[in-house]
Amino acid sequence: MKECTIIKGKPVADRITEEVIKDVEKLKVSGIEPSLAIVRVGENPDDMSYERGAVNRCGKTGINVVNVVLSEDISEQEYIKEIENLNERNDVNAILCLRPLPKHIDENKIKNIIEPSKDVDCFSSINTAKVFEGDKTGFPPCTPSAVVEILKYYDINLSGAKVGVAGRSMVVGKPVSMLLMDENATVKICHSRTQDMEKELSDSDIVIAAIGKAEMIDSKYIKEDAVVIDVGINVNSEGKLCGDIDADSVMKKAGMLTPVPGGVGSVTTSVLAKHVVKACRQQNGL
Amino acid sequence: MKECTIIKGKPVADRITEEVIKDVEKLKVSGIEPSLAIVRVGENPDDMSYERGAVNRCGKTGINVVNVVLSEDISEQEYIKEIENLNERNDVNAILCLRPLPKHIDENKIKNIIEPSKDVDCFSSINTAKVFEGDKTGFPPCTPSAVVEILKYYDINLSGAKVGVAGRSMVVGKPVSMLLMDENATVKICHSRTQDMEKELSDSDIVIAAIGKAEMIDSKYIKEDAVVIDVGINVNSEGKLCGDIDADSVMKKAGMLTPVPGGVGSVTTSVLAKHVVKACRQQNGL
Repeated sequence: MKECTIIKGKPVADRITEEVIKDVEKLKVSGIEPSLAIVRVGENPDDMSYERGAVNRCGKTGINVVNVVLSEDISEQEYIKEIENLNERNDVNAILCLRPLPKHIDENKIKNIIEPSKDVDCFSSINTAKVFEGDKTGFPPCTPSAVVEILKYYDINLSGAKVGVAGRSMVVGKPVSMLLMDENATVKICHSRTQDMEKELSDSDIVIAAIGKAEMIDSKYIKEDAVVIDVGINVNSEGKLCGDIDADSVMKKAGMLTPVPGGVGSVTTSVLAKHVVKACRQQNGL
Repeated sequence: MKECTIIKGKPVADRITEEVIKDVEKLKVSGIEPSLAIVRVGENPDDMSYERGAVNRCGKTGINVVNVVLSEDISEQEYIKEIENLNERNDVNAILCLRPLPKHIDENKIKNIIEPSKDVDCFSSINTAKVFEGDKTGFPPCTPSAVVEILKYYDINLSGAKVGVAGRSMVVGKPVSMLLMDENATVKICHSRTQDMEKELSDSDIVIAAIGKAEMIDSKYIKEDAVVIDVGINVNSEGKLCGDIDADSVMKKAGMLTPVPGGVGSVTTSVLAKHVVKACRQQNGL
């Protein structure tokens, strides 16, 4: 009987965390304390949950956290002032703006106010352009970076691999396509208007599911022994947390599969911590 | 015997030019004169040839041209000053910096000095990010835009179409992939590290060849009746101008093929003129 390996995020996160701990120790020896500001507007439970995760991870790694919590009805002007203040603070190396922002604040305006060298989750156009260009000096968004970290940790060959990406969002689909192309994969991007997604994905060595539909992708979309990365976070008809992958079905065919929860989502905050160290090192000319 | 239709760029350019002429006339009635500054460093023949084409096209459409010709040994600082001057001039709506710049001028620095609203050929990171994001307010580079104009002019269905792009450069491959995805195509990006490009491209309804190798792609890469857009400009072993497509071979199989010369290259300056009008209209709140 076929065995599909469930590839968890935790060992990947643990390894990245270990590296970050060492890097932070080295920086502290030189008198440098890496520091992340997390800017939250209001009390959105998703934001608060991600914030808790980030604070925990930073705590583990020795990264300082500055929590900036703003009232839901903060004006755009005031929000801009907060970001400008963090841009200028020498004791803040990195800024994470929890998003989406409330509707009365124009993200298109804010994204070009945040200092690109402190923008560790790819809010600024400068970092977006760098992801597109394959310029490694920037900061790709944490979730697609986590996908690449998982693939590398589990020694999946990327160069020349055929990758099928389901989803074309700026949060996952498009940036992960560029990051995997940087690794010399041949990338096909499928989406809601793709004619026959089943056929299109079923010749891929690696499938990245980021389409945002609960358990949509079953074994018919998957090639025998393919590596399947599930980036979806949905709730299924039974009210259970699930990904975009129908895991019971796909496990009968895939070679490897990331679980939900416990897969990609558990790696993002370690990538965030890694980006904070990178920002801090760059700012100190290291 | 199979007939392949050669789809030329000229009628596409002519139609765009007609539209631009009308738009410019309307603007002039309102007292607005659209104007493009072309900034050239040195006497590179490719630059001078493109400049002549652009000046001609602008002349035809009533767009004013400001030619800025700078000495080959201009310092980075002086070049920056020239761009800042053009950024500020109210009588200049659009700026085209002919590239590549001489090596002693850092393009990564310049690209964030040019005013994004005047940057009609996608030099600035802001416009690069907009192409990636599918934000239509920006200016994609002229060559990939010309590819889309040709496909639309010849009524090629793009929504749901399978597109194979050969090449992943920032000049053509990556931006054309994003522009075609905006049109709801399913895009596969192939490149030098793709395992079996013949196989990968041969299931595509549309092939965009932008890999920079003279006549590399023959009929074996092409599906019966596919539409083939040749973006390559090379010189073959006989010293003749040619594309990335082996035209004699591909014509036996493809349904449509753009010629080289006379294909994509002949559409770019009309796209440039269209972008100048767009910039001018945006700056005047129209």
